[in-house]
Amino acid sequence: MTDSTRAVGSLRADAARARLFEAAVAAFAEKGFHGTTTRDIAAAAGMSPAALYLHHRSKEELLFVISRAGHEDTLALVREGRAATSDPVGQLRTVVNDFASHHARNHTSTRIVNYELSALEPGHLAEIQELRRRIDREMQDLVTEGVEAGVFQTSQPRVAATAVLSLSIDLARWYQDGGAWTPEEIGELYADLALRIVGATGGPSSDPASPWSSR
Amino acid sequence: MTDSTRAVGSLRADAARARLFEAAVAAFAEKGFHGTTTRDIAAAAGMSPAALYLHHRSKEELLFVISRAGHEDTLALVREGRAATSDPVGQLRTVVNDFASHHARNHTSTRIVNYELSALEPGHLAEIQELRRRIDREMQDLVTEGVEAGVFQTSQPRVAATAVLSLSIDLARWYQDGGAWTPEEIGELYADLALRIVGATGGPSSDPASPWSSR
Repeated sequence: MTDSTRAVGSLRADAARARLFEAAVAAFAEKGFHGTTTRDIAAAAGMSPAALYLHHRSKEELLFVISRAGHEDTLALVREGRAATSDPVGQLRTVVNDFASHHARNHTSTRIVNYELSALEPGHLAEIQELRRRIDREMQDLVTEGVEAGVFQTSQPRVAATAVLSLSIDLARWYQDGGAWTPEEIGELYADLALRIVGATGGPSSDPASPWSSR
Repeated sequence: MTDSTRAVGSLRADAARARLFEAAVAAFAEKGFHGTTTRDIAAAAGMSPAALYLHHRSKEELLFVISRAGHEDTLALVREGRAATSDPVGQLRTVVNDFASHHARNHTSTRIVNYELSALEPGHLAEIQELRRRIDREMQDLVTEGVEAGVFQTSQPRVAATAVLSLSIDLARWYQDGGAWTPEEIGELYADLALRIVGATGGPSSDPASPWSSR
């Protein structure tokens, strides 16, 4: 085998894995993890069940791959938003804008990522839970730093941080394409709500009725 | 058959239906609607599959019965909270306190009620969606009345009302018994967050750092 035939083979395997990934997302979203068979996924990806097993040991491994990719994307997004500025108000606005619009835009895959965790095997679940803890910790740290800097007013930073993430995650349940708000609008609106939840006392707001916009 | 034997038969049927209801909630919560068989539910209720069909035509009908009961309870809770006072701040505090603590306390059944709607048959789904519209409308009206009374400050009452309900519904996803907060604490804390989301400018708060508590 030459290097170029090896490269083509590798590209084909990548393409097959991408098809399986998309097919599994669609199938899990429609029928749930437990209601989906590997045969369903293989058929939707235009493969035989045997071909699926060349790429993934099991249906659960596919769920894990989807879940890990989703959580890694989300953690990166939160870290980038925090790194963009040292101002907690600006950080919260950017992180929530990106986090909320991501969940609205990708409501099908984020639904699986957030609602099928109990189907993961213990080792896989532990890896995902560690990613979730890191995401939670970033938000806790952001809120705590805002309180310490005197720009957020809350006696319950942990509740506030939990609520800010929870609000966006729930978009995966109810958001539908073509509804009242685009993902970009949801991002802006939820950033305003997050600033209210943490009791932000400064910074610009896109809501003219926000408590701090007239100061 | 005498009246008393008829009454005993009716009580037995009620008890059987209650057992099936509980068994279906547990099974759907563990394996999802599509991953659960009528045989699983019947076995968990200590019945034969044939006995199950004496009470419910299908697994889907059981899901509908669970979903309808959950939504009717929630609508009643919201209406009672609104009827308790004419003050929008007091209404929001009571409704969110009850709504959030209900979702924390009953996180297993509220998970099914909120996440398995797509498995309902069209006629059943329409009935549930009408109940959801009524719940949404109660919250929209509450927020709009608060804005009109000048005690809530938001240019986005629809987003605020959606967010307030969404935040509590997401408890069904993440809340676990024995965690950091009891259902009663969650109720109090979420009522404070709801007042922040709508930009409440008056009324007592249990959060000493709330923007209005020092006024």
